[in-house]
Amino acid sequence: MSHSVTDEFHSAIALEPTSENSFNAHLGAGWKVAGAVNGGYLLALLGHALRQSSPNAPDPLVISAHYLGPSDSGPAEVATRIVRQGRSSATFGVDLVQDDRPTITALATMGSLAALPDDVATSAEPPDLPVPEECIDVAEASADFLAAAPLLSRFDMLLDPATTGFAVGRPSGRGLLQGWLRWADGSDPDVLSLLAFLDAFPPVMFDFGRFGWSPTIELTSHVRAVPAPGWIRVTVHSRNIAGGMFEEDCELWDSAGRLVAQSRQLARQPRD
Amino acid sequence: MSHSVTDEFHSAIALEPTSENSFNAHLGAGWKVAGAVNGGYLLALLGHALRQSSPNAPDPLVISAHYLGPSDSGPAEVATRIVRQGRSSATFGVDLVQDDRPTITALATMGSLAALPDDVATSAEPPDLPVPEECIDVAEASADFLAAAPLLSRFDMLLDPATTGFAVGRPSGRGLLQGWLRWADGSDPDVLSLLAFLDAFPPVMFDFGRFGWSPTIELTSHVRAVPAPGWIRVTVHSRNIAGGMFEEDCELWDSAGRLVAQSRQLARQPRD
Repeated sequence: MSHSVTDEFHSAIALEPTSENSFNAHLGAGWKVAGAVNGGYLLALLGHALRQSSPNAPDPLVISAHYLGPSDSGPAEVATRIVRQGRSSATFGVDLVQDDRPTITALATMGSLAALPDDVATSAEPPDLPVPEECIDVAEASADFLAAAPLLSRFDMLLDPATTGFAVGRPSGRGLLQGWLRWADGSDPDVLSLLAFLDAFPPVMFDFGRFGWSPTIELTSHVRAVPAPGWIRVTVHSRNIAGGMFEEDCELWDSAGRLVAQSRQLARQPRD
Repeated sequence: MSHSVTDEFHSAIALEPTSENSFNAHLGAGWKVAGAVNGGYLLALLGHALRQSSPNAPDPLVISAHYLGPSDSGPAEVATRIVRQGRSSATFGVDLVQDDRPTITALATMGSLAALPDDVATSAEPPDLPVPEECIDVAEASADFLAAAPLLSRFDMLLDPATTGFAVGRPSGRGLLQGWLRWADGSDPDVLSLLAFLDAFPPVMFDFGRFGWSPTIELTSHVRAVPAPGWIRVTVHSRNIAGGMFEEDCELWDSAGRLVAQSRQLARQPRD
């Protein structure tokens, strides 16, 4: 039996029910970056628990997650609570707890993407990227860099060379990173994958030559459609860097050219 | 004693404590639009309750609010609960309840804007607006329109004529509204005013000629700085209209040219 990274993803977000709306989880060390477990992976874990608690409205249309502190690899608990059960949607609270301390508290509005109408009048344009063969494979980064970010080995992450000046001491200062993303085994993304992909790219502060840790204060995700098979195009952009904080917008475009997910986070600037 | 609209705002968000973290409020009929109480005003009300509960970190850096259903004018309760008390920030849950039913559930990360560093490296540009005298005063709209939206009388709202084609049957279809905003008595905005201003403009769907009610599913606000005195410049923009929903981004720029607040909401498209 082949072991794929997508198997690894679904295994990493596995949940063992302990009561009606509580689950045990195990945060994988392979999902860490700079010493803490990655926030996108944790968002997918919360999405999985929400799906278990909301079988009739299984898709996380919106999750707003407040990150209270770093999460470490090892055991964790996820607890959901229903706030409102509607006809076609449901609103939940969900918390990630380690050592009896919440590390993420979130709210989510769940729905069914399959039940949505099929209108598309999106005016945004997907990023104009070079073909994958002409992009910079993050797997070619220095051994030190990769060792500090085991998360990166979970993905094929190909950055547009126009946005990788940071790697050679020439960050553009535009506040933009973009490229291609898929699971490292080439498996197709699903809805929960999108949650992980929304916070997989390096922090946009890299494009200002600032490589320290940028802790997320809050991240709100919108998942708008089930992604088509194939590569996801990613943009990460910031426009308001001020007061020790910055906002970071991420967009995920599927192979059919649909803007399938968006996120905005408020984060603290690195201390450098 | 003169009665100003800002007095009216602060009166409309007044809270009577009923226990340590619970308050009685009265939702003013003057803040309704299309039959429901305006979401921005309600966000400011939640911000006021959070401030009462968080004296050392009084400013709502981020509020993520899930709107569960319309709120009506009349009595309501606001209840806060502390999730995490940090050194310089605190995270709370906050709920608005009417008739024992939550109409908004939210999470907030509170901090102190006065204590933030003063770096500003914002790359976004404020909107290029005609001077107020050359804009379209919403107070000149039809009596029917104003009667259905008493909220509008709380503001001086001057729309850029380049984005008011909707009013004469020629919406631009770009998904953009912009203009000037202040309290109707010309009073200067404060931090809680910004929360109200973030959802004061007409829904961006107007720029597609769609005038029905666009119920907010979730709105996340970022308040980044105390606003300078004077007019606020507002942009409301949408880029992803699909699947019966749309995202709407609002930016508030103060008279000093600072991007003082941003919001993104996910809303349902009007049924028209």
